[in-house]
Amino acid sequence: MVSRADIAAAASRIASHVRHTPVLRVAGVELGVPCPVTLKLELLQHAGSFKPRGAFNRLLSDRLPEAGVIAASGGNHGAAVAYAARALGVPAEIFVPALTPAAKVARIASYGAEVVQTGETYAEALAASRLRQSETGALEVHAYDHPAVLAGQGTVAREFEQDAPEVTHVLVATGGGGLIGGMAAWYAGGTQVISVEPATCPALHDALDAGRPLDAPVGGIAADSLGARQVGALMFPLAQRYVSDAVLVPDTAIAAAQRLLWDRFRLVAEPGGATALAGLLSGAFVPPDGSHVGVLVCGGNTDPAKVAS
Amino acid sequence: MVSRADIAAAASRIASHVRHTPVLRVAGVELGVPCPVTLKLELLQHAGSFKPRGAFNRLLSDRLPEAGVIAASGGNHGAAVAYAARALGVPAEIFVPALTPAAKVARIASYGAEVVQTGETYAEALAASRLRQSETGALEVHAYDHPAVLAGQGTVAREFEQDAPEVTHVLVATGGGGLIGGMAAWYAGGTQVISVEPATCPALHDALDAGRPLDAPVGGIAADSLGARQVGALMFPLAQRYVSDAVLVPDTAIAAAQRLLWDRFRLVAEPGGATALAGLLSGAFVPPDGSHVGVLVCGGNTDPAKVAS
Repeated sequence: MVSRADIAAAASRIASHVRHTPVLRVAGVELGVPCPVTLKLELLQHAGSFKPRGAFNRLLSDRLPEAGVIAASGGNHGAAVAYAARALGVPAEIFVPALTPAAKVARIASYGAEVVQTGETYAEALAASRLRQSETGALEVHAYDHPAVLAGQGTVAREFEQDAPEVTHVLVATGGGGLIGGMAAWYAGGTQVISVEPATCPALHDALDAGRPLDAPVGGIAADSLGARQVGALMFPLAQRYVSDAVLVPDTAIAAAQRLLWDRFRLVAEPGGATALAGLLSGAFVPPDGSHVGVLVCGGNTDPAKVAS
Repeated sequence: MVSRADIAAAASRIASHVRHTPVLRVAGVELGVPCPVTLKLELLQHAGSFKPRGAFNRLLSDRLPEAGVIAASGGNHGAAVAYAARALGVPAEIFVPALTPAAKVARIASYGAEVVQTGETYAEALAASRLRQSETGALEVHAYDHPAVLAGQGTVAREFEQDAPEVTHVLVATGGGGLIGGMAAWYAGGTQVISVEPATCPALHDALDAGRPLDAPVGGIAADSLGARQVGALMFPLAQRYVSDAVLVPDTAIAAAQRLLWDRFRLVAEPGGATALAGLLSGAFVPPDGSHVGVLVCGGNTDPAKVAS
């Protein structure tokens, strides 16, 4: 299991490559909720999401073959691996499915990676990338189910705790679970960690209900960032132990959270980046009396024309 | 002259009404400059710019008549006065010229203010608002040339100094000069303050050359936020004493800075909000050896579709 020491080591390893993203404190009344809220603006991270934390930690923990690195992704992980590979001077090949938005494909290519768009879903792009990896010998950088990736993503919780120690409950969007797994490993039962998923992508919610990871539906407006068929095997015991609640939100609540982030804060979040906030605004998560809610705004890779009111 | 004590008093007065906006530290190499840079993300302020600081300080320093408040504005000050008036429960009437973008007119109206769009420039809208004020008796809230407005805007420098004491030079966009006047009054010769204006709106640059405020051209892509015909009489002695340089940038540099803020940081800045950064990126301001540059990103009230690369 990934430990706080692993995450602290990851933080040192990646420090010169990632941004320490800022927090913004917000009065509850601004959001119509009965407690103060602190947003962590991780959408300001390199490559537009939290993903470079895990990607750098993975690439810096291993010997990089001449063939470089290969990854499958709905888009954000691919952008992060492409960004990290360019920073470290190795080639990258990124497999994305048909549902990956044009803005993300363009971003991956802008970092000099080879982009292969194939398959309908992330799972199909992953299968294609693995076939290709067996030919090239490139280092596979899994989007979530690897200890170095989990530890890297956990560094966001370490920063959040450092900058906002008053937070009692942190809301995090879950896809394959690398982010929430890493964050749960950091908080480890201190600050409570709440998973928020689109009702159209309920992989962690369903897995916790079933007591094991299992196939879940993938669909809706956040599918490109949160549409993993199953949560990772490595994160699941962390979630069982340290994730105190796993709530679902409708796509309409995600779109409303995106609009609010633009309207009140001039922040452009992608659907997956607004999902955690949607968990709070929609009432799916009800903060207990006396709580101070932290919300991770985890990605902004979208066409900004889509979020303005 | 506005003093540090006035600004500290303003900060206390407005504290419950404005956001303490975050800073983001950036390595120089990310921007192609030879020194570290700290951005202050004032575009995350209420109503999308720094303007509520001055508006709240003005409204909270005076008795508010039943007729409420009246202001002329290129847009951002109007949005701030409308926001503040709503928060304090008084009516607001806002005069904007024809060049005010639709996004700003809509924002002002969204806060419940009466919007009157009249005249070609800010100066003409101001004249119309004064005529109207003489009929209604509403409190006139000048966009920059009032001690309470200057002191309110100065609070942004107080926060910036508190959060980023390492900064040696601060770049600030100048329109009518309320912001840079207030900030110069705070820094008062400590951290150097550099004015950046569009070459198409050189009011402070020309005034410092001439030794007095005088009419300057108003045009270009940032005219709605930086297009004052003259800088304020109150800010001018502050600028003479404490503004160490006043540089000009072409509109193309402003548009490039907007694109970079989106591409690298997922920030949507309006042209006036990207102008200070343009001063650095374009080489109009050359940071001396050993400096640490602070850049105020002061507004984001634009159509986000316009800034994506």
